[in-house]
Amino acid sequence: MREVAIIGIGQTVVDEHWDKSLKELAGEAAFAALSDARQHKAQALFVGNMLSGILSKQENIGGLIADWVGMPAIEAVKVEAACGSGAAALRSGLIAVSSGEIDSALVIGVEKMTESLPIETTEALATAADAEYEAAQGLSFVALNALVMQRYLHEYRWAHTDFGYFSINAHENASHNPYARLQEAVTEKDYAQARMIAAPINLLDASPTGDGAAALLLVPADSVKHPKNSLITIAGSASATDSIAVHSRKDPLWLSAAEKSATKAYRQAGVSPADIDLFELHDAFSIMSALSLEACGFAERGQAPRLALDGSIKPTGMIPVSTRGGLKARGHPVGATGIYQVVEVVQQLRGEAGFTQVENARIGMAQNIGGSGATIITHILRRV
Amino acid sequence: MREVAIIGIGQTVVDEHWDKSLKELAGEAAFAALSDARQHKAQALFVGNMLSGILSKQENIGGLIADWVGMPAIEAVKVEAACGSGAAALRSGLIAVSSGEIDSALVIGVEKMTESLPIETTEALATAADAEYEAAQGLSFVALNALVMQRYLHEYRWAHTDFGYFSINAHENASHNPYARLQEAVTEKDYAQARMIAAPINLLDASPTGDGAAALLLVPADSVKHPKNSLITIAGSASATDSIAVHSRKDPLWLSAAEKSATKAYRQAGVSPADIDLFELHDAFSIMSALSLEACGFAERGQAPRLALDGSIKPTGMIPVSTRGGLKARGHPVGATGIYQVVEVVQQLRGEAGFTQVENARIGMAQNIGGSGATIITHILRRV
Repeated sequence: MREVAIIGIGQTVVDEHWDKSLKELAGEAAFAALSDARQHKAQALFVGNMLSGILSKQENIGGLIADWVGMPAIEAVKVEAACGSGAAALRSGLIAVSSGEIDSALVIGVEKMTESLPIETTEALATAADAEYEAAQGLSFVALNALVMQRYLHEYRWAHTDFGYFSINAHENASHNPYARLQEAVTEKDYAQARMIAAPINLLDASPTGDGAAALLLVPADSVKHPKNSLITIAGSASATDSIAVHSRKDPLWLSAAEKSATKAYRQAGVSPADIDLFELHDAFSIMSALSLEACGFAERGQAPRLALDGSIKPTGMIPVSTRGGLKARGHPVGATGIYQVVEVVQQLRGEAGFTQVENARIGMAQNIGGSGATIITHILRRV
Repeated sequence: MREVAIIGIGQTVVDEHWDKSLKELAGEAAFAALSDARQHKAQALFVGNMLSGILSKQENIGGLIADWVGMPAIEAVKVEAACGSGAAALRSGLIAVSSGEIDSALVIGVEKMTESLPIETTEALATAADAEYEAAQGLSFVALNALVMQRYLHEYRWAHTDFGYFSINAHENASHNPYARLQEAVTEKDYAQARMIAAPINLLDASPTGDGAAALLLVPADSVKHPKNSLITIAGSASATDSIAVHSRKDPLWLSAAEKSATKAYRQAGVSPADIDLFELHDAFSIMSALSLEACGFAERGQAPRLALDGSIKPTGMIPVSTRGGLKARGHPVGATGIYQVVEVVQQLRGEAGFTQVENARIGMAQNIGGSGATIITHILRRV
């Protein structure tokens, strides 16, 4: 297997893009990534997307987007793993390039969510839960996460307000990211007074959806002769699953698929949690930040809120998370999110993260989750 | 890249399965493939599926099915390329095994289509067309193919009845396949009198949808020490795309993605069309049989109906197609179809195709199409 480098990154701002269709969003990110890499094309296209069929009445978007971005004959496919679709597409592209099957891959995550009625989007997002055991009982995706958070608060005796700093950190970081959906800082008071959505999850515990696309260009590392930027390689990549229905798990407060995929990625990269300079985690809800930090070895079970309270998760802290705003404030265009995370890790490793730059970041991790912990994909990137 | 063998095949009958959910169908095929291979599990799961989100309100079915078949922690993902989803999933699994990333892959194609209202299914299938340029104008998928067939009849001066033998051959073969949806033979008279659907496509030009699942177990060929059956390897695999919207193509009567992917697969396998002992083509509509045969080099442009008329496509003919019924009569559970095709090629190469066995078949080809020629994936299998 060849080592693979990410030589191009691109993204659109996460927003309500009333003037851009799904393929136009994808194209904007793709052209940015190609331009960043100073390339004109790729041999194959891997699209991460969850909801195009339900919300845009369009499947087969691999071919659609390949054609739109001026590569009308290349191999192209859509990869879907709910909100983990972005990283799942990256893994497909990565394996194809590292195996030698192809010599370059364009990976795009794209989602168009805001043209639909809110109820349609909520129903569409519920397809990430178990349709028979969860959604059919009327459980929305936020309600499902609320049950998990409630259990966590009960089990480990935290107050709801102890979770506030996950949100405050994300918003603070997003206020310096021009691609973020919510570029405004929030305070402890804002968090305490935020409108309740599904108790105990309030508005500032939950990430906003949005329209957006992000893209990466992958090539074999040894083909990069004169890197324009620092050379960033993928040092670890792994995916694992758990039952979709949360009640089927032995412990609903333990993301076993996060533990499995992170452990494997650490081993591949030859690193331990202590070596990770920043961690773009899947903070769709603040409870998920805590569970991810614990399953990946950054905190003892039930202790992750401490990392938020003591400032460890800030860009200057021990394990910076959501450094460009995270799902919480950069926004969560679901199938695109996994690619946004990797774009942001690359920015950090290149030293292009501006005001929220993690000093001398060399090793970064991105973790993308489909369902409430059902499909978890971890990537570790390294500045060579 | 390691050579990869298919050591297990499984399928459900294509039917209206009112008593089985999506995951139960997938499980039935998966257990059959594992049992055929005398294995208990696989390292990763690749699911080909198009419509689970729209029709079953369930995405993230990779993890769902992995859990259901008793492999709750393995890597699992859904791959989508409209009606080409099955072969797209196979290609993902193939690359993962041949690269050495994993040592075994379970590939399942599954679709659940008959629980929805017919209008819902028709609208869902239209997501394989271009939503903005085609479906939004009211073009259903059959109407789109009707326009192509109309043009073919005009351009090459065939009578509609000249296409009848594609359908007659498929039905004849399906009458000997216990897994086929339509196990009944039809006659020239049936074809001539069949109800018109979208002129010139009549009921016997069009494949029936249905519920169904098919599965394959892939392992490195050199790991198979004592094959239970003949060893079947994947000698060629390639995918190519064309514009989704048919009107955007230079020539709507030429499947350039079929030509590209078949040419590449021939080269990989070191064969030419003359070496192919049977061809499971994507006869969603009889016009597609003709276009596929021409683009893959089995007939001159505009001449494929001759192969149907002179018996060349029968199991005893020069280039047998739809030997187990094809999409036309085995049935077309869209995202599963590409795996059914490969299961059937394996049956032929093993000599397990019963009454429609192609004598001494050694090299077989399967071609799966997403959209009206937009994504075309070709696999060539060889009995070693």
